[in-house]
Amino acid sequence: MNPALPDTLRWRNGQLQLLDQRVLPGKVEYLHIEDINAAWHAIKTLAVRGAPAIGIAAAYALAQSMRDVPAAQFHATLQTNADYLISARPTAVNLAWAVQRLLAAAADPDYGVLVREAQAIHAEDLDICQRLGAHGAPLIKAGSNILTHCNAGSLAVSRLGTATAPMYHQHFAGVRFHVYVDETRPLFQGARLTAWELDQAGIDVTLICDNMAASLMSQGRVDLVIVGTDRVTANGDVVNKIGTLNLAVLCRHYNVPFYVACPSSTFDAGTASGELVEIEQRGREEVLLEHAADVAVYNPAFDVTPNALVTGIITEHGLAGNAAQLRTLLG
Amino acid sequence: MNPALPDTLRWRNGQLQLLDQRVLPGKVEYLHIEDINAAWHAIKTLAVRGAPAIGIAAAYALAQSMRDVPAAQFHATLQTNADYLISARPTAVNLAWAVQRLLAAAADPDYGVLVREAQAIHAEDLDICQRLGAHGAPLIKAGSNILTHCNAGSLAVSRLGTATAPMYHQHFAGVRFHVYVDETRPLFQGARLTAWELDQAGIDVTLICDNMAASLMSQGRVDLVIVGTDRVTANGDVVNKIGTLNLAVLCRHYNVPFYVACPSSTFDAGTASGELVEIEQRGREEVLLEHAADVAVYNPAFDVTPNALVTGIITEHGLAGNAAQLRTLLG
Repeated sequence: MNPALPDTLRWRNGQLQLLDQRVLPGKVEYLHIEDINAAWHAIKTLAVRGAPAIGIAAAYALAQSMRDVPAAQFHATLQTNADYLISARPTAVNLAWAVQRLLAAAADPDYGVLVREAQAIHAEDLDICQRLGAHGAPLIKAGSNILTHCNAGSLAVSRLGTATAPMYHQHFAGVRFHVYVDETRPLFQGARLTAWELDQAGIDVTLICDNMAASLMSQGRVDLVIVGTDRVTANGDVVNKIGTLNLAVLCRHYNVPFYVACPSSTFDAGTASGELVEIEQRGREEVLLEHAADVAVYNPAFDVTPNALVTGIITEHGLAGNAAQLRTLLG
Repeated sequence: MNPALPDTLRWRNGQLQLLDQRVLPGKVEYLHIEDINAAWHAIKTLAVRGAPAIGIAAAYALAQSMRDVPAAQFHATLQTNADYLISARPTAVNLAWAVQRLLAAAADPDYGVLVREAQAIHAEDLDICQRLGAHGAPLIKAGSNILTHCNAGSLAVSRLGTATAPMYHQHFAGVRFHVYVDETRPLFQGARLTAWELDQAGIDVTLICDNMAASLMSQGRVDLVIVGTDRVTANGDVVNKIGTLNLAVLCRHYNVPFYVACPSSTFDAGTASGELVEIEQRGREEVLLEHAADVAVYNPAFDVTPNALVTGIITEHGLAGNAAQLRTLLG
């Protein structure tokens, strides 16, 4: 593995350490999590972000919190600490899922079992990203110009990321290519995180404003788009960071392939289509920067890209072109 | 005329006064231009911006500078001052054009002639915007949801602006509608200027990030797009602020009419198509905000929207759907 790729989180001598994403890229600092209150605060304030990364961090933090708890109080404390961690971001599905896995594993009052379960979750995530990267890698040729949006990278997951996994796979295999990164308004995850992590790994990166993609595509300067996703509905619609739909429409117009990369756990078979997903509306202060007029703001966190605009979905099981193929792939 | 619409510039007791656009919308302050050095500095530092506004400001500033010049030195001083003003923004076509009009008008060493010529340029600009607004007004119905990009508003021209002229026309006629304003990265002209001036006039405004337009259009929440332009080539291609092409492609996909508003002087019959226009590349510091990673940047000032994506071009002479109609309209 390339040493230039930072660990989003690590487990050292029984302690969780988190790369503090609040101060990136200006400072590369690890938070040494002292106790469960520090873990709760780190999750709450987005020191760690990205659904899989939050889940792994919570699993380690919960295990750590149980180290010196006597057997008599073990199960009651475990439940209390689990509920407390989940309350840091109650809508984060992976957080609750990871915590539940630890609860299920703790039949006996055994700290070591919890640590091993957290490590298993972490290892599974690494493995999924590696397999996803291998499946997506053939899409990237020497000299390819890729465009990505937001951060579905190493910082959001573990090691290889999702949208970035095929890129890292090819980069470590010695394939040279170039990535345009959307800055991703309003929160600039592309400018702050994706551009930084790709650059750190030695990948050739160019930052653009979100409204510059059409200019590039009209000149034939984008060969493919790869983005991550927060949820894929049963019909293959893709719910992802605001601005994703914008890229998908441009790709259709300019005949550029539009790929989505995600672990199969992102597939939500229980929701028929993207239209049924309630889109979180966020605060106006994210859009109203220093110089903006004090007016009303529209600030949805996500948009919905219809499956018809998606060329393919890359998972750890392979590449699917539509919802039917995806269901077959997932068995 | 609605008193809520600010004067971009005004001529008071023989003095040019400029609304200082560098401090909008936080402060509404007029610069009282004392001498030609102050005028040069105001133009250079973008206290006044927008092609027509710069031309009008330069014309008044040049006239003002000649007030007390003796007849013997009149023509030599006029030429010197004219050259000096043009040097503030040497590529601004309207600046040179306005100054040349004053030079041509000054057969006699007469300060009054210069003032009247500057006033004529100003009045013509007001008239063009009003006529343009009247031609575009029928496109805006009660309840229309309009989307615009950058600032082709009152602040860039005089009074009614170009893209905004049909909006102000309808607003002053009592028609109620709603405008989404793209913030317009990298320089935020939409967030700083357009959102402010429309809001000041009492128009219902919502600010969005540039990547949110597809989200709105996919929900049927945009009825039409109106933008300005810096140049229309002989085949009807539209050169305008980066991000315009992005909107035009989305409009095509979602079947939303895409209109361009400009004075006929923007028509460049000498350039066959948009591909032939050299696009200014601007500095990376405009894109790299505080938290961005220190990577390469692509930052073109403009993009080129092919005429095939343009529903209509609104000028002071009427509405043209393509280059042939535009040529007929311009006689």
